[in-house]
Amino acid sequence: MVRTAVAGASGYAGGELLRLLLGHPDVEIGAVTAASNAGRPVGEVQPHLAPLAGRVFEETSPQVLAGHDVVFLALPHGQSAAVAAELGDGTLVIDCGADFRLEDAGEWERFYGSAHAGTWPYGLPELPGGREALRGSRRIAVPGCYPTAVSLALFPAYAAGLAGSDAVVVAASGTSGAGKAAKPHLLGSEVMGSAGAYGVGGSHRHTPEIVQNLSAVAGRPVRVSFTPTLVPMPRGILATCSAPALPGVTAGSLRAAYEKAFADEPFVHLLPEGRQPTTGAVVGANTALVQVALDEAAGRIVVVSAIDNLTKGTAGGAVQSMNIALGLPEELGLPATGVAP
Amino acid sequence: MVRTAVAGASGYAGGELLRLLLGHPDVEIGAVTAASNAGRPVGEVQPHLAPLAGRVFEETSPQVLAGHDVVFLALPHGQSAAVAAELGDGTLVIDCGADFRLEDAGEWERFYGSAHAGTWPYGLPELPGGREALRGSRRIAVPGCYPTAVSLALFPAYAAGLAGSDAVVVAASGTSGAGKAAKPHLLGSEVMGSAGAYGVGGSHRHTPEIVQNLSAVAGRPVRVSFTPTLVPMPRGILATCSAPALPGVTAGSLRAAYEKAFADEPFVHLLPEGRQPTTGAVVGANTALVQVALDEAAGRIVVVSAIDNLTKGTAGGAVQSMNIALGLPEELGLPATGVAP
Amino acid sequence: MVRTAVAGASGYAGGELLRLLLGHPDVEIGAVTAASNAGRPVGEVQPHLAPLAGRVFEETSPQVLAGHDVVFLALPHGQSAAVAAELGDGTLVIDCGADFRLEDAGEWERFYGSAHAGTWPYGLPELPGGREALRGSRRIAVPGCYPTAVSLALFPAYAAGLAGSDAVVVAASGTSGAGKAAKPHLLGSEVMGSAGAYGVGGSHRHTPEIVQNLSAVAGRPVRVSFTPTLVPMPRGILATCSAPALPGVTAGSLRAAYEKAFADEPFVHLLPEGRQPTTGAVVGANTALVQVALDEAAGRIVVVSAIDNLTKGTAGGAVQSMNIALGLPEELGLPATGVAP
Amino acid sequence: MVRTAVAGASGYAGGELLRLLLGHPDVEIGAVTAASNAGRPVGEVQPHLAPLAGRVFEETSPQVLAGHDVVFLALPHGQSAAVAAELGDGTLVIDCGADFRLEDAGEWERFYGSAHAGTWPYGLPELPGGREALRGSRRIAVPGCYPTAVSLALFPAYAAGLAGSDAVVVAASGTSGAGKAAKPHLLGSEVMGSAGAYGVGGSHRHTPEIVQNLSAVAGRPVRVSFTPTLVPMPRGILATCSAPALPGVTAGSLRAAYEKAFADEPFVHLLPEGRQPTTGAVVGANTALVQVALDEAAGRIVVVSAIDNLTKGTAGGAVQSMNIALGLPEELGLPATGVAP
Repeated sequence: MVRTAVAGASGYAGGELLRLLLGHPDVEIGAVTAASNAGRPVGEVQPHLAPLAGRVFEETSPQVLAGHDVVFLALPHGQSAAVAAELGDGTLVIDCGADFRLEDAGEWERFYGSAHAGTWPYGLPELPGGREALRGSRRIAVPGCYPTAVSLALFPAYAAGLAGSDAVVVAASGTSGAGKAAKPHLLGSEVMGSAGAYGVGGSHRHTPEIVQNLSAVAGRPVRVSFTPTLVPMPRGILATCSAPALPGVTAGSLRAAYEKAFADEPFVHLLPEGRQPTTGAVVGANTALVQVALDEAAGRIVVVSAIDNLTKGTAGGAVQSMNIALGLPEELGLPATGVAP
Repeated sequence: MVRTAVAGASGYAGGELLRLLLGHPDVEIGAVTAASNAGRPVGEVQPHLAPLAGRVFEETSPQVLAGHDVVFLALPHGQSAAVAAELGDGTLVIDCGADFRLEDAGEWERFYGSAHAGTWPYGLPELPGGREALRGSRRIAVPGCYPTAVSLALFPAYAAGLAGSDAVVVAASGTSGAGKAAKPHLLGSEVMGSAGAYGVGGSHRHTPEIVQNLSAVAGRPVRVSFTPTLVPMPRGILATCSAPALPGVTAGSLRAAYEKAFADEPFVHLLPEGRQPTTGAVVGANTALVQVALDEAAGRIVVVSAIDNLTKGTAGGAVQSMNIALGLPEELGLPATGVAP
Repeated sequence: MVRTAVAGASGYAGGELLRLLLGHPDVEIGAVTAASNAGRPVGEVQPHLAPLAGRVFEETSPQVLAGHDVVFLALPHGQSAAVAAELGDGTLVIDCGADFRLEDAGEWERFYGSAHAGTWPYGLPELPGGREALRGSRRIAVPGCYPTAVSLALFPAYAAGLAGSDAVVVAASGTSGAGKAAKPHLLGSEVMGSAGAYGVGGSHRHTPEIVQNLSAVAGRPVRVSFTPTLVPMPRGILATCSAPALPGVTAGSLRAAYEKAFADEPFVHLLPEGRQPTTGAVVGANTALVQVALDEAAGRIVVVSAIDNLTKGTAGGAVQSMNIALGLPEELGLPATGVAP
Repeated sequence: MVRTAVAGASGYAGGELLRLLLGHPDVEIGAVTAASNAGRPVGEVQPHLAPLAGRVFEETSPQVLAGHDVVFLALPHGQSAAVAAELGDGTLVIDCGADFRLEDAGEWERFYGSAHAGTWPYGLPELPGGREALRGSRRIAVPGCYPTAVSLALFPAYAAGLAGSDAVVVAASGTSGAGKAAKPHLLGSEVMGSAGAYGVGGSHRHTPEIVQNLSAVAGRPVRVSFTPTLVPMPRGILATCSAPALPGVTAGSLRAAYEKAFADEPFVHLLPEGRQPTTGAVVGANTALVQVALDEAAGRIVVVSAIDNLTKGTAGGAVQSMNIALGLPEELGLPATGVAP
């Protein structure tokens, strides 16, 4: 059995990690830590985790986190480096935060306003070379939820040399992506029946991560206009992505590129023609649904992807990467079915 | 491996059965049948069941359903008897419909307007004597979703002789309880942002089933005023139940009765004092959450229970009963954690 | 023109007051005050009030509130008395808080834990004698949202001597009833897809107000079991109310009592038989929809009412009472149509 | 008083027309007609329209619609021409359907698959020259809901010569935009908690209307990639629009263009910097909220607009155009405040 700990387990990402780890046959759950919620019963803060109801959140500290095979970090930005430094190289540390995702220190500083902590192997195994980077690794940076949805949607077009630089992404997210801190604009009264955009104009912190991923696949800089929106649902990301179709691209060549990219992927499904992804179909699942179209009049490739931001977009992606790093079967313990309707 | 078939698999109950059976380690899924959806791909109708996406719904017929160890029926009322008659006594038939729930033929005829098909062992193992009735059985009537929530909430008070006859139940249900047939009042535009009651005045068909269960436990007739309401969520039942507190009942004796009733139950959790059940905590789980209070000023015992109508209220209860009937561990393959938020 | 001020205008009740006053032909809006939001633009806090977007919230103080014909108070409990004391008898003060609703000082102290401020004329004109109490008054206590829905539902049965004492009420409320203060359990992520009860066992502060109203109409003490629930919608209350049917009550006599009670009411509509109220039909309207049934098997009268908690349940009721107090047409400036779907 | 009729009044657009006309001080409501709902009480089909509850839908026929000053058509595509032909030139006919929106017969035939009925003055007064085209007109084509939101968002950039051709629009719509016909994918169970795209790749019928509007303003062909998405709310459109920033465009010149375009508009509000439009703020209002940004890294102008699809996007826009055509004050009877939260 792999002994795991979850730091920051009282938030949404931490709760989803615990839900998945409870269902993982090769894992046992050790320390479960929190900050302001330390000392409270898990059942009070995460009432959906009935099997852990009697446990109590411990303080997030090196002592508590020591002695586990795998430590998941679901901490606010900027806290992971200090915690990871206390955990030896024998421990697999999987960071669900942003600290180690970006390769470019300048971009980090521009978007996060602090010193760059470094770069860890990136936990999106579906990207070209993605699995290789994770095998045997002892440090993993889990991608952001939006970059997961967008990169899965667009990388095949760039990998196949079909798409031009000027990508445009508008993504609709459920509210759990904004976290569990109580803010007035996230009240149920405010979000039910309402949709709005934020981070407009390229200021969302996931923008440089998307640019990094697509540029790496394309082998040249890709410009991305990214606008996230908040819509009235607890979970899910629907990413509507487009990029200029390079000359000669046909509907057939486009579909072939996507079929090839996802042919052997256990968690990414290119839908048959005529169907569109919905986030409802992937709630609680580690699944990504993708559809692709060529808009000849507009000269654009249009790709829509749907994921659960907490599962494939965070905790499920983290467990998938853990499985790869540890040499376990990649799909082990990960739900492939959504809870619908 | 237990070989199972699901008849009526294109609806919500059928979809939930398939979701749970996919996660059951001792089960394999055989025939998957439908009526008007026969011939369509499962992935088109139930897009959340990715592992079955390539399967095609077959016609619901005795030939197709033959040769399975267990056949789940998720058919419209009145169709189960004919199908079951064609399946031999060696097959475990589990009916998620209403046909075999009621013991009183007169009540059946009054509420359903057709001839009574008979009475099968009742699939609510938590009721006194409930498990015994299911062990080795080859026919099981799965309770209605409301009767599950209400019976779990109130039976301990009646079993302990603490409650008088005049029970009042108001239950809020998510819309999946109303099924997948497209009706104008069930459109998203109609139900989002709106709550309403139906079956007011005791006309809902689950009323006699609730009366039957509580009267059996009490050992005398219990009168029940039952009003179901529809609220804007896809899943979940919140049952707010009350009954007169008999003389001498104290908060302590009441809580003790509930602690005793659920002490060994794997799926029913009496919450610690100060917490209330929410349906959000049991989405996708076979869990029931219960809290009990004594309102001394009103002279009433008040019990609130929360279940997922499709899981513990239908498909999960059906699989739990299957496990018992077949001698498998009762919890096998059943999720104990909800998908939240 | 009647010159009005709204104190506590940055919350949900205050915002609804402003929305209605903007549409009132005989009213002009003077001071608009807030506590922690003082100094912020109205358009930032209440973005739906486009015509006031350029205004700025002032501090809530006697100086700012002086010089208006009508002052609406939408303040936290316990603050109204001090503010009202500074406003002369020439000013109509309409308190949307609880401070002056209860007649019994002991009940106030038991439920609110502070000294009783007094009792003002009660702003529910539909109650027997309700309008007379408001005409010419210079102080009005606006009822709580639940007591409005419940009292309208049950008073005709008690006024006609048809109902026994043991009333049971379960009411489903939208989240705006819980206010705009950011609390974790009110986050959109928590409330969407989830229903839960609170104040279980008679502890909700609206309980004594409901008891007071029904007992006054009945002419004897009425016991009430009241359980509020929170369901995933921003606005609306659906109150499912029942009381024992006294001997001799028939469906006909019951309906006749309700037809008589509401025959001349501009804002309360007894629905034709066969239709049920929904909260969606009264969003933004000062309308209450009511349906009544006799459950002979259970021996109970069952009444369902639907209101918008912010309109008829708070701000609309307040404006309706203002109209009566000032001798204006009762319906003036109040929307009779809901915003649906 | 202007005597009005509404044909197709049992649907969502028709219901919204009636709601607005009930609040219009210079209008009286004459015939109210329907197709399959003819003969049913209005109160049964549109329960939110309490003042019309006792009316009965009449058949949609020339006889019934004759003798009104204004006839609003809210009919399925393809039916308006025949009805309008029977109404004389003295009647103002306002078509909420698509039949007369497009100028190019070829585009009509390509997207609608039928013969082009013609082109009427276009009811979007905010477009350059828009009001002039409507004054005194006796035929008006009400724009589609998406084209309203998108054209308001992008026309200032094209009118000021700041934007290049390759526009990309992703718009999130509430479900009422899909109408009231009961279809499985529009069930509450399906749409709550789920977001999905449709008409992907440029096939939505509003695409040529958007292209027409922007190209006319730009004075040259504008290419548009348009993807509509359905999100879990009953009302509202959030349009996230972008276009290449032409060389030399600055944040200042961009904002100045938008301030100029909307300076005198009664219903379109450019928000102060730092605020973003939400659809919740315009529910039930004829208001459009707009924000604009320059994404220098991506080289794109990004504009977000929010409207209520049924109000400004359909019925409110229709009444606004009626006011202009009849020489009434443009804002008469139109709500400027949203119903929020």
